[in-house]
Amino acid sequence: MVSWQVHGRHVLVVGGGNVGLSRVRHLLDADAKVTVVSEQLVPELQRFKDMDMLEAVYKRKFRIQDLQLYETLSREEVLSIDTTTKQGSSAVDEFEKTKFALVLVCLNDHELGQQIYYRSRQLGLPVNLADRPDECDFYFGSVYRKGSLQIMISTNGRAPRFCNRLKNFKIKPMFDNLDVTRAVSTLGYMRDQLRATVCPGEDPATIEKRMDWNRQVTDFFSIEEWCEMTPSDADQLLGYFPEVPTLK
Amino acid sequence: MVSWQVHGRHVLVVGGGNVGLSRVRHLLDADAKVTVVSEQLVPELQRFKDMDMLEAVYKRKFRIQDLQLYETLSREEVLSIDTTTKQGSSAVDEFEKTKFALVLVCLNDHELGQQIYYRSRQLGLPVNLADRPDECDFYFGSVYRKGSLQIMISTNGRAPRFCNRLKNFKIKPMFDNLDVTRAVSTLGYMRDQLRATVCPGEDPATIEKRMDWNRQVTDFFSIEEWCEMTPSDADQLLGYFPEVPTLK
Repeated sequence: MVSWQVHGRHVLVVGGGNVGLSRVRHLLDADAKVTVVSEQLVPELQRFKDMDMLEAVYKRKFRIQDLQLYETLSREEVLSIDTTTKQGSSAVDEFEKTKFALVLVCLNDHELGQQIYYRSRQLGLPVNLADRPDECDFYFGSVYRKGSLQIMISTNGRAPRFCNRLKNFKIKPMFDNLDVTRAVSTLGYMRDQLRATVCPGEDPATIEKRMDWNRQVTDFFSIEEWCEMTPSDADQLLGYFPEVPTLK
Repeated sequence: MVSWQVHGRHVLVVGGGNVGLSRVRHLLDADAKVTVVSEQLVPELQRFKDMDMLEAVYKRKFRIQDLQLYETLSREEVLSIDTTTKQGSSAVDEFEKTKFALVLVCLNDHELGQQIYYRSRQLGLPVNLADRPDECDFYFGSVYRKGSLQIMISTNGRAPRFCNRLKNFKIKPMFDNLDVTRAVSTLGYMRDQLRATVCPGEDPATIEKRMDWNRQVTDFFSIEEWCEMTPSDADQLLGYFPEVPTLK
């Protein structure tokens, strides 16, 4: 299980029913650029469209070319790029931004679903067919999000509703009362400072030294203690480097 | 955040140091078929190799062709497949199994890392450069796993060590004492029975009806109650269909 990055990336949702809606909600939470193709839209999807929260909405039948809606180069052109040059790698970067990072099929028409599935795979686009766990490169879980902290609960599609309850009744009560956002931001600051000023350098020995110190200091305090720390506390801890704080 | 499926898929790890080792551990946990290319291996990776837990290990310099190590068709051949035929879709399925589902670069040689990164993107292979959050299609979080339940904690690379502690000191104590595996298996059984015998059919109205009932029944009992239920309890609940149990 790894978490797939869709922040700022194009994502395609085929189908504007209730399943499509739940996908779109999830994707907007993850800050994706969502394009929907569907003849019909449930009212809330229409509302998202009216509020300009979607990248684009096409109220029409799906066309197989929609899978490459934003692509500016043919696949053959992409394959002929020399990626070892500066120009080539920029071209690949540019092309990447025009590709769908995910294709989500939420249709009752299974035959069309299959067509989209195989064409997506041929193009190397990650694809998910709603309610067909065998035909999925990835799964949605229930996600609890608080600042940069994300907790995903998944049963590989076995019991999605139960995941939702675990999130609401187990994860949420525990993390709502914990200022994890502060902890993450302080720890991120400490790591950045360590790299930038206290112990700069990108050779293996230096990296190892930083990682080691960071690990020991992170482990020295409890989760609750980290949730109360500020950047100025982190500055004080950085003063110990290369030593780590001790109980004395 | 979506969870990427690597179960049974080929995954490439370039680099056999401590970072490579931690990636390999994570991937073996996820039942991926791991291939490692590295001139050097830390002892534990060597042990994994000796115990036959890895798909393959190449103790040599990385070659850019390694990205397509198991591929049997050229990309041009793949693009020329007619995916609307049965034969074509099988060919795409077969090709998919030979592609790396992920490419993980764990090297100190940043120049080589960049090369691998751009070539992977050109080929449409999801790629992750250790310690370069900007050059990643995906992230690793800390994963708690118990049967089919998976909980991933991530801060998009901001505080990985802290995620690990949240897993060990918050998530683990909570879920170790809860028989979630039983709940998920009972709920999965109930859903399967519902589809197979109690209310079969794949038309939208029937699917909606099943989903609705399933949602209501899942929500009717507490998490703790589900953790004590058996398939025979599920059978009893299915007897209520299309009604749902009430407090009476």
